[in-house]
Amino acid sequence: MTVRTLYHYPLCGFSRVVRFMLSEKKLDYECVYQAPWDVKEEVLEHNTAGTLPVLVDINGTSVFGSSAIREYVEEVYPKPNLTGEDQIDRAESRKIADWFDYIFYNDVYLCIINEKIYKRFVREGDKVPDPSRVRLALSKLHVHLDYVSWLIDRRNWLAGQYFSIADVYAASFLSVVDYLGCIPWAKHEIAKQWYARIKSRPAFRGILNDNLSQIPPSLDYSNLDF
Amino acid sequence: MTVRTLYHYPLCGFSRVVRFMLSEKKLDYECVYQAPWDVKEEVLEHNTAGTLPVLVDINGTSVFGSSAIREYVEEVYPKPNLTGEDQIDRAESRKIADWFDYIFYNDVYLCIINEKIYKRFVREGDKVPDPSRVRLALSKLHVHLDYVSWLIDRRNWLAGQYFSIADVYAASFLSVVDYLGCIPWAKHEIAKQWYARIKSRPAFRGILNDNLSQIPPSLDYSNLDF
Repeated sequence: MTVRTLYHYPLCGFSRVVRFMLSEKKLDYECVYQAPWDVKEEVLEHNTAGTLPVLVDINGTSVFGSSAIREYVEEVYPKPNLTGEDQIDRAESRKIADWFDYIFYNDVYLCIINEKIYKRFVREGDKVPDPSRVRLALSKLHVHLDYVSWLIDRRNWLAGQYFSIADVYAASFLSVVDYLGCIPWAKHEIAKQWYARIKSRPAFRGILNDNLSQIPPSLDYSNLDF
Repeated sequence: MTVRTLYHYPLCGFSRVVRFMLSEKKLDYECVYQAPWDVKEEVLEHNTAGTLPVLVDINGTSVFGSSAIREYVEEVYPKPNLTGEDQIDRAESRKIADWFDYIFYNDVYLCIINEKIYKRFVREGDKVPDPSRVRLALSKLHVHLDYVSWLIDRRNWLAGQYFSIADVYAASFLSVVDYLGCIPWAKHEIAKQWYARIKSRPAFRGILNDNLSQIPPSLDYSNLDF
Protein backbone atom coordinates (compact mmCIF):
# COMPACT_ATOMS: atom_id res chain seq x y z
CA MET A 1 0.00 0.00 0.00
CA THR A 2 1.61 3.22 -1.15
CA VAL A 3 0.47 6.82 -0.78
CA ARG A 4 -1.72 7.93 -3.71
CA THR A 5 0.58 10.24 -5.68
CA LEU A 6 -0.05 12.74 -8.44
CA TYR A 7 2.96 14.01 -10.36
CA HIS A 8 1.81 17.35 -11.69
CA TYR A 9 2.71 20.85 -12.77
CA PRO A 10 0.54 23.54 -11.14
CA LEU A 11 -0.08 25.43 -14.39
CA CYS A 12 -1.00 22.34 -16.40
CA GLY A 13 -4.69 22.07 -17.34
CA PHE A 14 -4.58 18.26 -17.53
CA SER A 15 -3.02 18.08 -14.05
CA ARG A 16 -5.68 20.42 -12.67
CA VAL A 17 -8.44 18.18 -14.03
CA VAL A 18 -7.15 15.30 -11.95
CA ARG A 19 -6.57 17.42 -8.82
CA PHE A 20 -10.12 18.80 -9.08
CA MET A 21 -11.65 15.34 -9.62
CA LEU A 22 -9.74 13.73 -6.74
CA SER A 23 -10.73 16.59 -4.42
CA GLU A 24 -14.41 16.44 -5.45
CA LYS A 25 -14.28 12.76 -4.53
CA LYS A 26 -12.59 13.65 -1.20
CA LEU A 27 -9.66 11.33 -1.89
CA ASP A 28 -6.35 11.96 -0.15
CA TYR A 29 -3.36 12.31 -2.44
CA GLU A 30 0.12 13.69 -2.40
CA CYS A 31 0.94 16.26 -5.05
CA VAL A 32 4.51 16.01 -6.33
CA TYR A 33 5.70 19.05 -8.30
CA GLN A 34 7.13 18.19 -11.68
CA ALA A 35 8.33 20.74 -14.23
CA PRO A 36 7.27 19.55 -17.73
CA TRP A 37 10.63 20.67 -19.18
CA ASP A 38 12.75 18.67 -16.74
CA VAL A 39 10.99 15.38 -16.07
CA LYS A 40 12.52 13.28 -13.30
CA GLU A 41 13.49 9.63 -13.61
CA GLU A 42 10.85 8.76 -10.99
CA VAL A 43 8.11 9.98 -13.38
CA LEU A 44 9.68 8.47 -16.51
CA GLU A 45 9.59 5.07 -14.82
CA HIS A 46 5.79 5.30 -14.97
CA ASN A 47 5.47 7.15 -18.28
CA THR A 48 8.43 7.01 -20.64
CA ALA A 49 6.93 9.88 -22.68
CA GLY A 50 7.11 12.10 -19.59
CA THR A 51 3.72 13.75 -20.17
CA LEU A 52 1.88 15.06 -17.14
CA PRO A 53 0.07 14.27 -14.98
CA VAL A 54 0.83 10.75 -13.83
CA LEU A 55 -1.32 9.20 -11.11
CA VAL A 56 0.07 6.37 -8.99
CA ASP A 57 -2.80 4.93 -7.01
CA ILE A 58 -2.63 3.24 -3.59
CA ASN A 59 -2.74 -0.21 -5.23
CA GLY A 60 0.36 0.73 -7.26
CA THR A 61 -1.50 1.16 -10.57
CA SER A 62 -0.02 4.01 -12.56
CA VAL A 63 -2.16 5.83 -15.09
CA PHE A 64 -1.46 8.67 -17.48
CA GLY A 65 -3.32 10.23 -20.41
CA SER A 66 -6.22 12.59 -19.83
CA SER A 67 -9.14 10.29 -20.60
CA ALA A 68 -7.41 7.23 -19.13
CA ILE A 69 -6.99 8.91 -15.72
CA ARG A 70 -10.48 10.42 -15.83
CA GLU A 71 -12.18 7.10 -16.58
CA TYR A 72 -10.00 5.23 -14.09
CA VAL A 73 -10.86 7.63 -11.25
CA GLU A 74 -14.57 7.49 -12.13
CA GLU A 75 -14.59 3.68 -12.25
CA VAL A 76 -12.58 3.03 -9.13
CA TYR A 77 -14.05 5.86 -7.03
CA PRO A 78 -17.59 6.27 -8.40
CA LYS A 79 -18.88 8.62 -5.68
CA PRO A 80 -19.91 11.30 -6.33
CA ASN A 81 -20.65 10.41 -9.94
CA LEU A 82 -19.05 13.08 -12.12
CA THR A 83 -19.92 11.69 -15.57
CA GLY A 84 -23.71 11.35 -15.41
CA GLU A 85 -26.30 8.67 -14.74
CA ASP A 86 -27.53 7.61 -18.17
CA GLN A 87 -25.78 7.09 -21.49
CA ILE A 88 -26.99 10.36 -23.01
CA ASP A 89 -25.84 12.41 -20.00
CA ARG A 90 -22.51 10.61 -20.01
CA ALA A 91 -22.01 11.26 -23.73
CA GLU A 92 -22.80 14.94 -23.15
CA SER A 93 -20.38 15.44 -20.26
CA ARG A 94 -17.57 13.60 -22.07
CA LYS A 95 -18.23 15.57 -25.27
CA ILE A 96 -17.76 18.88 -23.43
CA ALA A 97 -14.73 17.51 -21.57
CA ASP A 98 -13.20 16.52 -24.92
CA TRP A 99 -14.06 19.98 -26.27
CA PHE A 100 -11.79 21.61 -23.68
CA ASP A 101 -9.24 18.82 -23.90
CA TYR A 102 -8.78 19.23 -27.68
CA ILE A 103 -10.52 22.22 -29.17
CA PHE A 104 -9.96 24.80 -26.44
CA TYR A 105 -6.50 23.30 -25.93
CA ASN A 106 -5.53 23.83 -29.60
CA ASP A 107 -7.38 27.11 -30.12
CA VAL A 108 -6.27 28.97 -27.00
CA TYR A 109 -4.49 27.09 -24.24
CA LEU A 110 -1.44 25.76 -26.07
CA CYS A 111 -0.52 29.14 -27.53
CA ILE A 112 -0.98 31.03 -24.26
CA ILE A 113 1.12 28.47 -22.36
CA ASN A 114 3.83 28.52 -25.02
CA GLU A 115 4.02 32.29 -25.26
CA LYS A 116 3.48 33.24 -21.62
CA ILE A 117 5.20 30.42 -19.76
CA TYR A 118 7.59 28.50 -22.03
CA LYS A 119 8.98 31.49 -23.89
CA ARG A 120 9.29 33.73 -20.86
CA PHE A 121 10.42 31.38 -18.15
CA VAL A 122 11.74 28.21 -19.73
CA ARG A 123 13.45 28.69 -23.08
CA GLU A 124 16.58 30.77 -23.17
CA GLY A 125 17.17 33.66 -25.56
CA ASP A 126 13.64 34.02 -26.92
CA LYS A 127 11.79 35.52 -24.04
CA VAL A 128 9.20 37.91 -25.42
CA PRO A 129 5.71 36.57 -26.14
CA ASP A 130 4.69 37.13 -29.76
CA PRO A 131 1.82 39.65 -29.49
CA SER A 132 0.16 38.59 -32.76
CA ARG A 133 0.01 34.94 -31.65
CA VAL A 134 -1.34 35.89 -28.23
CA ARG A 135 -3.91 38.18 -29.87
CA LEU A 136 -5.12 35.40 -32.17
CA ALA A 137 -5.49 32.96 -29.26
CA LEU A 138 -7.33 35.55 -27.17
CA SER A 139 -9.71 36.33 -30.02
CA LYS A 140 -10.61 32.64 -30.13
CA LEU A 141 -11.07 32.62 -26.35
CA HIS A 142 -14.28 34.63 -26.79
CA VAL A 143 -15.84 31.77 -28.75
CA HIS A 144 -15.22 29.38 -25.87
CA LEU A 145 -16.53 31.76 -23.22
CA ASP A 146 -19.62 32.29 -25.39
CA TYR A 147 -20.01 28.51 -25.53
CA VAL A 148 -19.89 28.33 -21.71
CA SER A 149 -22.49 31.13 -21.49
CA TRP A 150 -24.71 29.45 -24.10
CA LEU A 151 -24.68 26.20 -22.13
CA ILE A 152 -25.27 27.88 -18.75
CA ASP A 153 -28.16 29.87 -20.21
CA ARG A 154 -29.91 26.55 -20.75
CA ARG A 155 -28.65 24.40 -17.89
CA ASN A 156 -27.63 24.45 -14.26
CA TRP A 157 -24.14 23.13 -14.97
CA LEU A 158 -22.32 22.72 -18.30
CA ALA A 159 -23.57 19.22 -19.14
CA GLY A 160 -27.00 19.46 -17.48
CA GLN A 161 -28.58 19.41 -14.04
CA TYR A 162 -25.49 18.25 -12.16
CA PHE A 163 -21.88 19.29 -11.73
CA SER A 164 -19.77 16.99 -13.93
CA ILE A 165 -16.47 16.40 -15.69
CA ALA A 166 -17.65 19.01 -18.23
CA ASP A 167 -17.32 21.65 -15.49
CA VAL A 168 -14.10 20.09 -14.22
CA TYR A 169 -12.41 20.26 -17.64
CA ALA A 170 -13.68 23.73 -18.54
CA ALA A 171 -12.70 25.18 -15.15
CA SER A 172 -9.32 23.46 -15.05
CA PHE A 173 -8.22 24.70 -18.47
CA LEU A 174 -9.76 28.17 -18.15
CA SER A 175 -8.22 28.62 -14.69
CA VAL A 176 -4.69 28.31 -16.09
CA VAL A 177 -5.46 31.09 -18.58
CA ASP A 178 -7.05 33.06 -15.73
CA TYR A 179 -3.93 32.57 -13.59
CA LEU A 180 -2.03 34.38 -16.36
CA GLY A 181 -4.60 37.20 -16.29
CA CYS A 182 -5.94 36.60 -19.78
CA ILE A 183 -9.69 36.07 -19.27
CA PRO A 184 -11.95 39.08 -20.02
CA TRP A 185 -14.63 38.05 -17.49
CA ALA A 186 -16.32 41.46 -17.64
CA LYS A 187 -17.33 40.77 -21.23
CA HIS A 188 -18.81 37.37 -20.41
CA GLU A 189 -21.16 37.86 -17.49
CA ILE A 190 -22.93 34.49 -17.62
CA ALA A 191 -19.69 32.51 -17.94
CA LYS A 192 -18.34 34.59 -15.05
CA GLN A 193 -21.27 33.65 -12.83
CA TRP A 194 -20.60 29.99 -13.59
CA TYR A 195 -16.89 30.43 -12.77
CA ALA A 196 -17.80 32.20 -9.51
CA ARG A 197 -19.73 29.08 -8.50
CA ILE A 198 -16.71 26.95 -9.43
CA LYS A 199 -14.42 29.16 -7.34
CA SER A 200 -16.60 28.71 -4.28
CA ARG A 201 -16.37 24.90 -4.38
CA PRO A 202 -14.13 23.58 -1.58
CA ALA A 203 -12.53 21.09 -4.01
CA PHE A 204 -11.27 23.98 -6.16
CA ARG A 205 -9.52 25.72 -3.26
CA GLY A 206 -6.19 23.96 -3.78
CA ILE A 207 -6.07 25.19 -7.37
CA LEU A 208 -6.89 28.76 -6.30
CA ASN A 209 -4.07 28.61 -3.76
CA ASP A 210 -1.46 27.89 -6.44
CA ASN A 211 1.22 30.54 -6.39
CA LEU A 212 4.48 30.02 -8.24
CA SER A 213 7.19 32.43 -7.11
CA GLN A 214 8.58 32.84 -10.63
CA ILE A 215 5.14 33.25 -12.22
CA PRO A 216 2.79 34.99 -9.76
CA PRO A 217 -0.99 34.72 -10.32
CA SER A 218 -3.07 37.59 -11.71
CA LEU A 219 -4.61 39.98 -9.20
CA ASP A 220 -8.09 38.47 -8.99
CA TYR A 221 -7.09 34.87 -9.62
CA SER A 222 -8.04 33.57 -6.18
CA ASN A 223 -10.59 36.29 -5.43
CA LEU A 224 -14.11 34.87 -5.04
CA ASP A 225 -15.53 38.30 -5.81
CA PHE A 226 -13.75 39.11 -9.09
CA MET B 1 -35.15 6.04 -35.94
CA THR B 2 -32.42 7.38 -38.21
CA VAL B 3 -29.59 5.55 -39.94
CA ARG B 4 -26.45 5.44 -37.77
CA THR B 5 -24.14 7.92 -39.51
CA LEU B 6 -20.44 8.63 -39.20
CA TYR B 7 -19.14 11.84 -40.72
CA HIS B 8 -15.50 11.09 -41.38
CA TYR B 9 -12.44 11.73 -43.49
CA PRO B 10 -10.77 8.52 -44.73
CA LEU B 11 -7.24 9.65 -43.80
CA CYS B 12 -8.17 10.80 -40.29
CA GLY B 13 -6.85 8.63 -37.47
CA PHE B 14 -9.68 9.61 -35.11
CA SER B 15 -12.27 8.71 -37.76
CA ARG B 16 -10.59 5.36 -38.34
CA VAL B 17 -10.75 4.54 -34.63
CA VAL B 18 -14.54 4.84 -34.72
CA ARG B 19 -14.91 2.93 -38.01
CA PHE B 20 -12.74 0.11 -36.64
CA MET B 21 -14.67 -0.02 -33.33
CA LEU B 22 -18.10 -0.01 -34.99
CA SER B 23 -17.01 -2.76 -37.39
CA GLU B 24 -15.54 -4.91 -34.59
CA LYS B 25 -18.93 -4.63 -32.90
CA LYS B 26 -20.65 -5.57 -36.19
CA LEU B 27 -22.80 -2.42 -36.13
CA ASP B 28 -24.23 -1.08 -39.38
CA TYR B 29 -23.39 2.53 -40.15
CA GLU B 30 -23.31 4.85 -43.07
CA CYS B 31 -20.00 6.60 -43.73
CA VAL B 32 -20.40 10.15 -45.00
CA TYR B 33 -17.24 11.63 -46.53
CA GLN B 34 -16.29 14.99 -45.03
CA ALA B 35 -13.16 16.94 -45.95
CA PRO B 36 -11.73 18.51 -42.76
CA TRP B 37 -10.93 21.74 -44.65
CA ASP B 38 -14.46 22.28 -45.97
CA VAL B 39 -16.89 21.19 -43.26
CA LYS B 40 -20.52 21.09 -44.35
CA GLU B 41 -23.40 22.77 -42.51
CA GLU B 42 -24.88 19.33 -41.82
CA VAL B 43 -21.82 18.46 -39.69
CA LEU B 44 -21.55 21.88 -38.03
CA GLU B 45 -25.11 21.46 -36.79
CA HIS B 46 -23.85 18.60 -34.62
CA ASN B 47 -20.40 20.02 -33.82
CA THR B 48 -19.88 23.75 -34.23
CA ALA B 49 -16.11 23.26 -34.02
CA GLY B 50 -16.28 21.04 -37.11
CA THR B 51 -13.78 18.49 -35.82
CA LEU B 52 -14.05 14.94 -37.14
CA PRO B 53 -15.45 12.40 -36.75
CA VAL B 54 -19.03 13.00 -35.64
CA LEU B 55 -21.23 10.01 -34.85
CA VAL B 56 -25.00 10.35 -35.06
CA ASP B 57 -26.51 7.24 -33.54
CA ILE B 58 -29.86 5.64 -34.42
CA ASN B 59 -31.50 7.26 -31.38
CA GLY B 60 -30.43 10.68 -32.69
CA THR B 61 -27.65 11.20 -30.12
CA SER B 62 -24.69 12.96 -31.69
CA VAL B 63 -21.25 12.50 -30.20
CA PHE B 64 -17.85 13.93 -31.08
CA GLY B 65 -14.46 13.99 -29.40
CA SER B 66 -12.20 10.94 -29.44
CA SER B 67 -12.72 9.64 -25.90
CA ALA B 68 -16.41 10.69 -25.84
CA ILE B 69 -17.23 8.57 -28.91
CA ARG B 70 -15.08 5.67 -27.72
CA GLU B 71 -16.71 5.51 -24.29
CA TYR B 72 -20.19 6.04 -25.75
CA VAL B 73 -19.79 3.16 -28.22
CA GLU B 74 -18.40 0.90 -25.48
CA GLU B 75 -21.22 1.71 -23.07
CA VAL B 76 -24.12 1.48 -25.51
CA TYR B 77 -22.77 -1.49 -27.50
CA PRO B 78 -20.73 -3.45 -24.94
CA LYS B 79 -20.18 -6.58 -27.06
CA PRO B 80 -17.49 -7.50 -27.74
CA ASN B 81 -15.84 -5.68 -24.85
CA LEU B 82 -12.93 -3.68 -26.28
CA THR B 83 -11.74 -1.96 -23.08
CA GLY B 84 -11.08 -4.89 -20.74
CA GLU B 85 -12.82 -6.72 -17.93
CA ASP B 86 -11.30 -5.34 -14.74
CA GLN B 87 -10.21 -1.84 -13.71
CA ILE B 88 -6.51 -2.52 -14.18
CA ASP B 89 -7.01 -3.91 -17.70
CA ARG B 90 -9.28 -1.00 -18.56
CA ALA B 91 -6.72 1.53 -17.30
CA GLU B 92 -4.05 -0.19 -19.37
CA SER B 93 -6.00 -0.21 -22.64
CA ARG B 94 -7.09 3.43 -22.22
CA LYS B 95 -3.54 4.48 -21.33
CA ILE B 96 -2.21 3.03 -24.60
CA ALA B 97 -5.18 4.50 -26.54
CA ASP B 98 -4.35 7.92 -25.06
CA TRP B 99 -0.69 7.36 -25.98
CA PHE B 100 -1.58 7.18 -29.67
CA ASP B 101 -4.26 9.85 -29.34
CA TYR B 102 -1.85 12.44 -27.86
CA ILE B 103 1.78 11.40 -27.87
CA PHE B 104 1.98 9.63 -31.23
CA TYR B 105 -0.38 12.27 -32.61
CA ASN B 106 1.91 15.13 -31.57
CA ASP B 107 5.23 13.36 -32.22
CA VAL B 108 4.52 11.93 -35.66
CA TYR B 109 0.98 11.98 -37.01
CA LEU B 110 0.23 15.71 -37.04
CA CYS B 111 3.42 16.61 -38.87
CA ILE B 112 3.05 13.87 -41.49
CA ILE B 113 -0.58 14.83 -42.15
CA ASN B 114 0.29 18.52 -42.37
CA GLU B 115 3.26 18.04 -44.64
CA LYS B 116 2.01 15.22 -46.85
CA ILE B 117 -1.71 15.99 -47.11
CA TYR B 118 -2.48 19.58 -46.13
CA LYS B 119 0.52 21.17 -47.78
CA ARG B 120 0.40 19.09 -50.94
CA PHE B 121 -3.30 18.78 -51.62
CA VAL B 122 -5.16 21.39 -49.63
CA ARG B 123 -3.29 24.65 -49.16
CA GLU B 124 -2.47 26.67 -52.22
CA GLY B 125 0.95 27.95 -53.11
CA ASP B 126 2.95 26.01 -50.53
CA LYS B 127 2.94 22.54 -51.86
CA VAL B 128 6.28 20.96 -51.06
CA PRO B 129 6.61 19.01 -47.81
CA ASP B 130 9.44 20.34 -45.63
CA PRO B 131 11.97 17.46 -45.65
CA SER B 132 13.51 18.42 -42.28
CA ARG B 133 10.12 18.34 -40.54
CA VAL B 134 9.20 15.03 -42.15
CA ARG B 135 12.61 13.61 -41.18
CA LEU B 136 12.15 14.64 -37.55
CA ALA B 137 8.68 13.08 -37.37
CA LEU B 138 9.92 9.87 -38.99
CA SER B 139 12.84 9.66 -36.56
CA LYS B 140 10.32 9.79 -33.72
CA LEU B 141 8.20 7.13 -35.42
CA HIS B 142 10.86 4.52 -34.53
CA VAL B 143 10.24 5.11 -30.82
CA HIS B 144 6.55 4.33 -31.25
CA LEU B 145 7.17 1.21 -33.34
CA ASP B 146 9.67 0.09 -30.70
CA TYR B 147 6.96 0.64 -28.08
CA VAL B 148 4.55 -1.59 -30.05
CA SER B 149 7.25 -4.27 -30.35
CA TRP B 150 8.10 -4.02 -26.66
CA LEU B 151 4.45 -4.55 -25.71
CA ILE B 152 3.92 -7.42 -28.19
CA ASP B 153 7.06 -9.13 -26.93
CA ARG B 154 5.30 -9.45 -23.58
CA ARG B 155 1.63 -9.81 -24.53
CA ASN B 156 -0.73 -11.27 -27.08
CA TRP B 157 -2.25 -7.88 -27.96
CA LEU B 158 -1.07 -4.37 -27.00
CA ALA B 159 -2.92 -4.09 -23.68
CA GLY B 160 -2.83 -7.77 -22.68
CA GLN B 161 -4.43 -11.09 -23.56
CA TYR B 162 -7.26 -9.65 -25.65
CA PHE B 163 -7.68 -7.37 -28.62
CA SER B 164 -8.71 -3.93 -27.29
CA ILE B 165 -9.01 -0.21 -27.93
CA ALA B 166 -5.21 -0.08 -27.50
CA ASP B 167 -4.89 -2.05 -30.76
CA VAL B 168 -7.70 -0.05 -32.37
CA TYR B 169 -5.99 3.30 -31.67
CA ALA B 170 -2.48 2.16 -32.56
CA ALA B 171 -3.62 0.53 -35.82
CA SER B 172 -5.89 3.41 -36.81
CA PHE B 173 -3.24 6.09 -36.41
CA LEU B 174 -0.37 4.01 -37.80
CA SER B 175 -2.47 2.98 -40.81
CA VAL B 176 -2.82 6.60 -41.95
CA VAL B 177 0.97 6.96 -41.88
CA ASP B 178 1.23 3.60 -43.67
CA TYR B 179 -1.24 4.77 -46.35
CA LEU B 180 1.25 7.54 -47.08
CA GLY B 181 4.04 4.96 -47.34
CA CYS B 182 6.00 6.20 -44.33
CA ILE B 183 6.30 3.14 -42.09
CA PRO B 184 9.63 1.26 -42.20
CA TRP B 185 8.08 -2.12 -41.33
CA ALA B 186 11.22 -4.02 -42.36
CA LYS B 187 13.10 -2.47 -39.44
CA HIS B 188 10.40 -3.40 -36.92
CA GLU B 189 9.69 -7.10 -37.39
CA ILE B 190 7.67 -7.67 -34.20
CA ALA B 191 5.47 -4.60 -34.73
CA LYS B 192 5.02 -5.75 -38.33
CA GLN B 193 3.77 -9.17 -37.19
CA TRP B 194 1.23 -7.43 -34.94
CA TYR B 195 0.10 -5.19 -37.84
CA ALA B 196 -0.23 -8.23 -40.12
CA ARG B 197 -2.69 -9.69 -37.58
CA ILE B 198 -4.58 -6.37 -37.57
CA LYS B 199 -4.72 -6.37 -41.37
CA SER B 200 -6.27 -9.82 -41.43
CA ARG B 201 -9.20 -8.80 -39.20
CA PRO B 202 -12.45 -8.53 -41.17
CA ALA B 203 -13.34 -5.31 -39.29
CA PHE B 204 -10.20 -3.63 -40.66
CA ARG B 205 -11.04 -4.41 -44.31
CA GLY B 206 -12.97 -1.18 -44.91
CA ILE B 207 -9.95 0.85 -43.82
CA LEU B 208 -7.64 -1.17 -46.10
CA ASN B 209 -10.00 -0.56 -49.02
CA ASP B 210 -9.69 3.24 -48.70
CA ASN B 211 -8.40 4.70 -51.92
CA LEU B 212 -8.59 8.44 -52.55
CA SER B 213 -8.13 9.32 -56.22
CA GLN B 214 -6.12 12.45 -55.40
CA ILE B 215 -3.95 10.72 -52.79
CA PRO B 216 -3.45 7.07 -53.78
CA PRO B 217 -2.32 4.58 -51.11
CA SER B 218 1.24 3.26 -50.91
CA LEU B 219 2.01 0.05 -52.81
CA ASP B 220 1.67 -2.42 -49.93
CA TYR B 221 -0.97 -0.52 -47.98
CA SER B 222 -3.73 -3.09 -48.44
CA ASN B 223 -1.43 -6.06 -49.00
CA LEU B 224 -1.79 -8.67 -46.26
CA ASP B 225 1.68 -10.02 -47.13
CA PHE B 226 3.72 -6.82 -46.94
